[in-house]
Amino acid sequence: MDFTKVQSVGNDFVLIEASKNKRDWSSLAKNICSRHFGVGADGLLVLFPSNDADFRMRIFNSDGTEAEACGNGLRCLVNYVHQKRIHSGDHMTVETMAGIRNAEIKVEGEGTKIRIGMGLPVFETSNIPVVVEKGQAKQICNMTTEYPLNVRDIQLSLSFVSMGNPHAVHFNNYPVTEFPLDVYGPLVENAAIFPVHTNFEVVRVIQPDKIEMRVWERGVGETLACGSGACAVAVASWILGYTGSKVDIKLPGGLLQAEWDGYNEVFLTGKAEIVFFGVWQQ
Amino acid sequence: MDFTKVQSVGNDFVLIEASKNKRDWSSLAKNICSRHFGVGADGLLVLFPSNDADFRMRIFNSDGTEAEACGNGLRCLVNYVHQKRIHSGDHMTVETMAGIRNAEIKVEGEGTKIRIGMGLPVFETSNIPVVVEKGQAKQICNMTTEYPLNVRDIQLSLSFVSMGNPHAVHFNNYPVTEFPLDVYGPLVENAAIFPVHTNFEVVRVIQPDKIEMRVWERGVGETLACGSGACAVAVASWILGYTGSKVDIKLPGGLLQAEWDGYNEVFLTGKAEIVFFGVWQQ
Repeated sequence: MDFTKVQSVGNDFVLIEASKNKRDWSSLAKNICSRHFGVGADGLLVLFPSNDADFRMRIFNSDGTEAEACGNGLRCLVNYVHQKRIHSGDHMTVETMAGIRNAEIKVEGEGTKIRIGMGLPVFETSNIPVVVEKGQAKQICNMTTEYPLNVRDIQLSLSFVSMGNPHAVHFNNYPVTEFPLDVYGPLVENAAIFPVHTNFEVVRVIQPDKIEMRVWERGVGETLACGSGACAVAVASWILGYTGSKVDIKLPGGLLQAEWDGYNEVFLTGKAEIVFFGVWQQ
Repeated sequence: MDFTKVQSVGNDFVLIEASKNKRDWSSLAKNICSRHFGVGADGLLVLFPSNDADFRMRIFNSDGTEAEACGNGLRCLVNYVHQKRIHSGDHMTVETMAGIRNAEIKVEGEGTKIRIGMGLPVFETSNIPVVVEKGQAKQICNMTTEYPLNVRDIQLSLSFVSMGNPHAVHFNNYPVTEFPLDVYGPLVENAAIFPVHTNFEVVRVIQPDKIEMRVWERGVGETLACGSGACAVAVASWILGYTGSKVDIKLPGGLLQAEWDGYNEVFLTGKAEIVFFGVWQQ
């Protein structure tokens, strides 16, 4: 079975074309994503034809569960169909479990970048979900912010945004590399106020158009990058007045650019690449 | 550039035939071994022709440094030339930086196993090297043993063996999974008595022909398996009378069988497999 290894900001996937293969994708994901005994990847992307969009994408995590959506995975898939010339033109639509996503291919000086719609941010606490009593936090433009969460020996000030999955964003004024994310990440993720746990972002604003962040992903731990986390951070930062509508975000795995006009969906732009082609015989 | 991903007991490598490619191997190792941005592997194996043996093998670590030898890598390379039918017959010799190694291909019920000579154990403390004063430890059959090393809140009883690289072996009487290797591994590795640091093995004897172990590798941390560590453990266990001349060793990454007659070189037998074939374009 032919496969392609792809990555965007260090989030890496095995990509397989379903039209050429029929498999139990969940079971395959578990085997093929194993770092020492398989190809090794964060997840499996499967490319399908679609009746409603140009393509359909399914994503499976390395434990075999199916994921709703993933910005980095979508960027990798769009780059793949573009580079392999399966699709021509600068725009395409991709059907995912979370709905139909729009993507734009931007060929610039430094190479090809993919701009994708990441959906609308959600601020209603019951929909994030996060359990916050009245008076415990501030409200700015519908966003619940400045929630003081005590974890071990420190108090974090959190803002809450959902991008289809929950995010708790904490702004720091020192370099994010100095934040002990391995210590506090698990404590925030599992704090009682998050009924289905949460993703956690630590952010520093560098300039009104430049921030740096690290992310602790729910059920995973620290990762090199997280597309929905980058969106949540850009949204929270815009609402708090730290940054404008277009911001460069430096993550451990690379750079992303987020755009939000304060009303419509969030757009994320970044590079994606084909790392290598392979043949899996198991 | 064609490559093959291979593994043995969870120690995984990218294998490249030098006859078909010319590269700066050290630089390639750094790029291709990257888990998220490359193929992802513990190291790079390069297969060369040899004037003195059937083949020559060079191994590069993921940081680009060249390694002297690696039992798991050698087993993978031997399996590769056997399966690809580059070599016929049940025996082959492989030139490495540590000398010429003998390998035997054993086709058994459960599949193909590779038996390789791992060299002679070294017990002279100055050659391991470990700095032990007279009276601090026991000597059994030239091996320095029962050295009481105090690390943090516990005292470990260590035996010292070199298999070309230093090993400190600690026998436990409870399951090795329960030993806090992440806590004590770094402390043993960097203890002052080891001038060039050490590898550290935690072992439990289950039966006279069956042991389980975990290994903390110098400069790496805990790994799924370590060939020279398995040899050092089998040798120490034989000398202490815990096990006989043939012992099955259960490691987190799989099973190995060690043989030592108390005098000649140590032999290690285990499976190796081709995981997938790929093309690297960078």
